[in-house]
Amino acid sequence: MTQKIAILGASGYTGAELARIIATHPEMEIVALSGDRKAGMKMGEVFPHLRHLGLPDLCKIEEIDFSNVDLAFCALPHATSQAVIAELPLDQKVVDLSADFRLRNPAEYEKWYGKPHSAVELQKEAVYGLTEFYRDEIRAARLCAGTGCNAAAGQYAIRPLIEAGVIDLDEIVIDLKAGVSGAGRSLKENLLHAELSGGTMPYSAGGKHRHLGEFDQEFSKLAGRPVLVQFTPHLMPFNRGILGTVYVRGNAEEIHAALAARYAEEVFLEVLPFGTLASTRSVAGSNFVHLGVTGDRLPGRAIVTVAIDNLTKGSSGQAIQNANLMLGLPETMGLMLAPVFP
Amino acid sequence: MTQKIAILGASGYTGAELARIIATHPEMEIVALSGDRKAGMKMGEVFPHLRHLGLPDLCKIEEIDFSNVDLAFCALPHATSQAVIAELPLDQKVVDLSADFRLRNPAEYEKWYGKPHSAVELQKEAVYGLTEFYRDEIRAARLCAGTGCNAAAGQYAIRPLIEAGVIDLDEIVIDLKAGVSGAGRSLKENLLHAELSGGTMPYSAGGKHRHLGEFDQEFSKLAGRPVLVQFTPHLMPFNRGILGTVYVRGNAEEIHAALAARYAEEVFLEVLPFGTLASTRSVAGSNFVHLGVTGDRLPGRAIVTVAIDNLTKGSSGQAIQNANLMLGLPETMGLMLAPVFP
Amino acid sequence: MTQKIAILGASGYTGAELARIIATHPEMEIVALSGDRKAGMKMGEVFPHLRHLGLPDLCKIEEIDFSNVDLAFCALPHATSQAVIAELPLDQKVVDLSADFRLRNPAEYEKWYGKPHSAVELQKEAVYGLTEFYRDEIRAARLCAGTGCNAAAGQYAIRPLIEAGVIDLDEIVIDLKAGVSGAGRSLKENLLHAELSGGTMPYSAGGKHRHLGEFDQEFSKLAGRPVLVQFTPHLMPFNRGILGTVYVRGNAEEIHAALAARYAEEVFLEVLPFGTLASTRSVAGSNFVHLGVTGDRLPGRAIVTVAIDNLTKGSSGQAIQNANLMLGLPETMGLMLAPVFP
Amino acid sequence: MTQKIAILGASGYTGAELARIIATHPEMEIVALSGDRKAGMKMGEVFPHLRHLGLPDLCKIEEIDFSNVDLAFCALPHATSQAVIAELPLDQKVVDLSADFRLRNPAEYEKWYGKPHSAVELQKEAVYGLTEFYRDEIRAARLCAGTGCNAAAGQYAIRPLIEAGVIDLDEIVIDLKAGVSGAGRSLKENLLHAELSGGTMPYSAGGKHRHLGEFDQEFSKLAGRPVLVQFTPHLMPFNRGILGTVYVRGNAEEIHAALAARYAEEVFLEVLPFGTLASTRSVAGSNFVHLGVTGDRLPGRAIVTVAIDNLTKGSSGQAIQNANLMLGLPETMGLMLAPVFP
Repeated sequence: MTQKIAILGASGYTGAELARIIATHPEMEIVALSGDRKAGMKMGEVFPHLRHLGLPDLCKIEEIDFSNVDLAFCALPHATSQAVIAELPLDQKVVDLSADFRLRNPAEYEKWYGKPHSAVELQKEAVYGLTEFYRDEIRAARLCAGTGCNAAAGQYAIRPLIEAGVIDLDEIVIDLKAGVSGAGRSLKENLLHAELSGGTMPYSAGGKHRHLGEFDQEFSKLAGRPVLVQFTPHLMPFNRGILGTVYVRGNAEEIHAALAARYAEEVFLEVLPFGTLASTRSVAGSNFVHLGVTGDRLPGRAIVTVAIDNLTKGSSGQAIQNANLMLGLPETMGLMLAPVFP
Repeated sequence: MTQKIAILGASGYTGAELARIIATHPEMEIVALSGDRKAGMKMGEVFPHLRHLGLPDLCKIEEIDFSNVDLAFCALPHATSQAVIAELPLDQKVVDLSADFRLRNPAEYEKWYGKPHSAVELQKEAVYGLTEFYRDEIRAARLCAGTGCNAAAGQYAIRPLIEAGVIDLDEIVIDLKAGVSGAGRSLKENLLHAELSGGTMPYSAGGKHRHLGEFDQEFSKLAGRPVLVQFTPHLMPFNRGILGTVYVRGNAEEIHAALAARYAEEVFLEVLPFGTLASTRSVAGSNFVHLGVTGDRLPGRAIVTVAIDNLTKGSSGQAIQNANLMLGLPETMGLMLAPVFP
Repeated sequence: MTQKIAILGASGYTGAELARIIATHPEMEIVALSGDRKAGMKMGEVFPHLRHLGLPDLCKIEEIDFSNVDLAFCALPHATSQAVIAELPLDQKVVDLSADFRLRNPAEYEKWYGKPHSAVELQKEAVYGLTEFYRDEIRAARLCAGTGCNAAAGQYAIRPLIEAGVIDLDEIVIDLKAGVSGAGRSLKENLLHAELSGGTMPYSAGGKHRHLGEFDQEFSKLAGRPVLVQFTPHLMPFNRGILGTVYVRGNAEEIHAALAARYAEEVFLEVLPFGTLASTRSVAGSNFVHLGVTGDRLPGRAIVTVAIDNLTKGSSGQAIQNANLMLGLPETMGLMLAPVFP
Repeated sequence: MTQKIAILGASGYTGAELARIIATHPEMEIVALSGDRKAGMKMGEVFPHLRHLGLPDLCKIEEIDFSNVDLAFCALPHATSQAVIAELPLDQKVVDLSADFRLRNPAEYEKWYGKPHSAVELQKEAVYGLTEFYRDEIRAARLCAGTGCNAAAGQYAIRPLIEAGVIDLDEIVIDLKAGVSGAGRSLKENLLHAELSGGTMPYSAGGKHRHLGEFDQEFSKLAGRPVLVQFTPHLMPFNRGILGTVYVRGNAEEIHAALAARYAEEVFLEVLPFGTLASTRSVAGSNFVHLGVTGDRLPGRAIVTVAIDNLTKGSSGQAIQNANLMLGLPETMGLMLAPVFP
């Protein structure tokens, strides 16, 4: 039976990406789309690439009849998201794509996001949405918190290495190259084509990026001790894709073997042959993840490269993967879309 | 019953695009992939974005057992294509993506492609693959000739206007902006990123582009008199997409009405509201076509804008649409993939 | 003796381009930079690429001592510009880069810019800044109005053809491809990298673009009768450069000869060999203009291609060329910077 | 007195960049341009952006009268370069832009470039061309070896830190983002626009990139002990610019102070305020270098960011800076061109 889907905050890029994927999902149907400032507009005006889909017009959240909604994707900004979800029916299944429910610890939330969490009970209830590592919890969840896109990329590269005990936990550097759609459809000068295209620069360097909260939480939990990574994101002159270049200490072959073993049964995780490097172009537009491992000329050092599409596996594809689990559907349903190249 | 598919010339972009679409086509299975110079390689080495598909390795054409092939896509260069297809079993269903069977008239072929056609009988047999205008012929065809990508874009804008008699046949200018993947994966200096990105220029201006052969053939046939258009393509610094800006003489509202009427039942053809302009970004990665009409301040003049993805609707998506017809499958099967934006 | 220069509105792209060129201009020195909302900031914060220049900090216009300013460039938005210039000392030499003084006729200004001109006397006084066609007037001017960037491109292609009487005045189509910096540093959704890169679309099609006011004024004046062109601009996914593809009726060789003759002595105007097509990449970052002419297969039709850098020859380079004339300096001083490629 | 300049290998990007800069250099005049395969062609055909310069036609090297040449830039491929330079007059001043004379040690050359050096005496004679660190030697040199572009970027960030003794020499990671023009005008599949634009990937990871030979030589010499860095370059979808993100161990403020002190008198080296990050866009098209330092949340770690234009400061601009010294001209002559933005 087709699942009825609402997308709250459908006028942003993750909202559009949800709609794109659901367009060919055999068991999901979009019944409501909210977009506060754009309420009343046709979705095909806000996103002309979706005009053929006959989607509902954008409305205000309060106009949605949630008794008719099997699952709501919440693609709102953080802070807004916690307020909105707190008002939804208590049994409403929700996959949240914001940052609001990623961190377990209210103090950590406040530290990284600058104000106290207003829905601490929901924060406790929420399940972290990195599917391949929280599958059972997600299947049983009412509220699932989508991960940060950069946080997803980094974790796919590093978690199995912590699990397998093959790297030095105090020597992890994530140099990350992030496509601009990760910054959303917001009107900021540095996101203009004339500013951004034709070059690159880092941002939030030195331990300031909010996704560090997720890295800290997840890696430390996994290791049973504090694990603090270095993380430098760079704004890239392309729209989709994240490349993580992860510098670790350990035996490169063992590292490769640990990734290969951990992901052997995972449909979306592709561990490339030893020495092959990941490329964002090879996963763009898809839910797939490419992972490469290469040794370094310096003994005991290795480089893990990881590529994901920030909007798909890093956000909306992940969200649908989790929604499939929460709705009792096959996990990969609607998500086997191949990457788009060239 | 799943249809067994071979792709001849699978190491180019149209070959990869066929494989991308077939990846989620419910009734097609790729059983053979040829790539002459790359025979023996894994498809995932040639196109890493397809590595998860478990495709057959690239082989030589002569290694393919065509008794096991329901339909072959031929994505070879022109001239090669006619030689290869002439050697295939006489009842082999073929969709050719090259230029070899687009033109009816051997003299026209020789004029535009610089040497005589070597398979004139096949040229006669082939059906022109602009689906929405040759649907019945394609359904019955053994050999279908995919259109030029620019030729497809221009025809979608102009054919209904000729049919409806609403434009001056001697005053048609097609100014076309073509994404670089239309030039294929060939090693030419002007296709290098350092040469092409960050600017634009025309090419083959003034009546030299080969797709004029198709325009002439099709428009003249439709009009019952010679129709010769002006056509200036421009090489664009993006990978996918064709925008046609078509200058015509006639009443803009009538022109819009003619397009809307002609495509009212067509799934892939979207006629935008009057005054709305087409954008390549809104169709990229999909089989959809966007058409816009706007009037000009000069009375009696109008501008038709048309956007397609050159690799999908302009080539491989069209080819699969035609293959669906030839195989008795629903025409849109596997082709409802939504455009990828941003 | 070094000329003292003020730039009003220095926080936009044309302001930055003025500063870039003046950086190596041997006879100009920047003594004041205004930027209303950014007053108090260092220029190197607003434009880090200019930080080595030791420029004055941004200030408010009212803080500038114009008795110490030989010439002011006014790079403010239209409407603001006329109000500001009206308040300047009556003998202050000004080169305005806005649209405010391009049109002679107040009614035309109101028609295209939507409100009455507030400084009609100045509008009368201003000289139109297309240097190669108004050189003597500019040399004597106090107030020079920079042309629209698209208007410059189109006029370089068409004016000599009107002058020489070699084209049909009722059959001119300008299909123009415009780099995004022409839209300025404004925060608009369609100028975001994620929206704009990777594709193209037209805008202001059908006779709505304001630069038509300039075309109409200039071409009609030149012809001694109304000349109304068709003009369709397209937003391009690159930062600098305008390509005009101009469809005209006439003998292509005569057209080429007319351009070659008219520009034979012009340093910045390069008429390419017959049949060669202009490319924006070949002029980007410079004050040069490339012009190409090719015939069409349809007798009596020709295509003129023209490429300029919208920020340089289309705006700030032109402004400095005019300022050189107004200040009694050699016209090309500081402007011989070669195009930047790749 | 104007210096007469020859450019050997003028048909590549570094050759074009030399010509671009010399176009406005007040004391250099190009008297000969060689381009083996393109001998006989006009420079304006090979590089249309230079057509206004009236440059000599491309010729074969053996056609050049070196008695009329004050200084030759050699922009040939490595291996070719050593053979050509060995045949030049013994007193011919040469600035080589290839890799042939960067390494002192013939064994190191053979290790990194795969075959023995054929001009070992010249290798001994050559002076390493990192101007700010070899100024006196260069001034006295007959043969100057231009550095690798990546090698220049890395050294600007790291050399002062080794000199000042403020970092751990065994813990240096250079994650480098390199614009595609660094790969030259060569016809390789991965350099095509359709392959490269819209994403990124690493290459030569793990200690394979040849510029490591330079890092090893220079850093070890400076430190008086072996210093081996980790170095991962990434191919970027833009044409000009290198961003180095350098991970070091030490006190961030001390590191910043060491850079600021070392470069206080250097015209082209800009050390940004503490905490500010470098951007390639801010130096593109110029000979300037931007350096930023920021601390990390992990105590004792810091990140140095460095941005250069690979074709200018990383290659041809550096070459002209060195040529100025060798010819007794002011070091910055012709090189004060401001970066081009946007």
